[in-house]
Amino acid sequence: MSPISDNHTDGYPALLQEAVEQFSTLPGVGKRTALRLALHLLRQPQENVTRFGNAFIRLRSEVKYCRECGMISDTERCGVCSDPKRDHSVICVVESLRDVLSIEQTGEYRGVYHVLGGLISPMDGIGPEDLPFGRLKQRAASGEVSEVILALSTGMDGETTAFYISKILSGCDVKISQIARGIGFGDDLEYTDSYTLGKAIANRTLISLT
Amino acid sequence: MSPISDNHTDGYPALLQEAVEQFSTLPGVGKRTALRLALHLLRQPQENVTRFGNAFIRLRSEVKYCRECGMISDTERCGVCSDPKRDHSVICVVESLRDVLSIEQTGEYRGVYHVLGGLISPMDGIGPEDLPFGRLKQRAASGEVSEVILALSTGMDGETTAFYISKILSGCDVKISQIARGIGFGDDLEYTDSYTLGKAIANRTLISLT
Repeated sequence: MSPISDNHTDGYPALLQEAVEQFSTLPGVGKRTALRLALHLLRQPQENVTRFGNAFIRLRSEVKYCRECGMISDTERCGVCSDPKRDHSVICVVESLRDVLSIEQTGEYRGVYHVLGGLISPMDGIGPEDLPFGRLKQRAASGEVSEVILALSTGMDGETTAFYISKILSGCDVKISQIARGIGFGDDLEYTDSYTLGKAIANRTLISLT
Repeated sequence: MSPISDNHTDGYPALLQEAVEQFSTLPGVGKRTALRLALHLLRQPQENVTRFGNAFIRLRSEVKYCRECGMISDTERCGVCSDPKRDHSVICVVESLRDVLSIEQTGEYRGVYHVLGGLISPMDGIGPEDLPFGRLKQRAASGEVSEVILALSTGMDGETTAFYISKILSGCDVKISQIARGIGFGDDLEYTDSYTLGKAIANRTLISLT
């Protein structure tokens, strides 16, 4: 197909046109890829396609958000919050669902979470009242929590949010920490930006055996 | 996420896990992209996601195949076959639905189609009896058709299929032609394979004004 054809679905049967248009609502999927995906589905057994379509409808309509941490969940309380083997005295504050999944997959963290669903961002008109800080303060002040770890993105919004949280939790008897900033595994010093490199030097950790 | 995590969805809520798995059944979509797409859908309004999922279920369950040419269609006869302004005396034989869409989008062709749905391929165990050649012969022999254009892929299977078609249609009073093989627009002679270049020279067309 010529590049010109990339946005034309006019001559298509209506059902195909709709499928192509729906696929191209996905981020990073253009009309051409959408067509390829729709034609792929046409070649699959009907029950597979029904399962395919229903997976997303069910995800959106049946998913719950954990009433404690705000993580998506199949039940009222997510798997982490309802797990007695997790350390409920440590709360890790993250921006999004995805961050929870990333941290879980490291296998390094045994505490619980608090999902903000965003960061304070004056540029985007997101203020503290739009995010679940009240619930975070309530959890931190419950007496059962000893540490709140901030695992937020670097950058202006992350720093603002971290500062705001440390301010509202200052009255609670909890430690507030922040995940380490430094050189990533496999990173090359030569290509590391100077801010990160500076922080990495300032926050150096001792490795001597004494 | 580390590369290790790329195939792990074990800790996910079941609904999310199912959505990620379904997205990753699509060609070219890995677990990581699938997760990104599923989380994207979670942020969309429910009616959009319902429409999204249903588009594919409806495409697969309600789509029809034109009883004349085999093209997918919303109705018993496709838009091309039922269009009186198309030239029904010329049939263009193609391998797949996608080829019809590509040719339609050139705007250069006003005849009708015959979709084989595959090519003869001894390697893949696809013989002439698996493809709708009987119907093609019937159409070609109807007396209303003057030309059959073969628009098949180059390569062994395409050549075999083209040869087979020209053999079975040899008794019908129709011209059999093949789309031109040559240098594509914007192609560089230096990088054109010698078979294509040889064919392009042999099939040269006259451009002198006399």
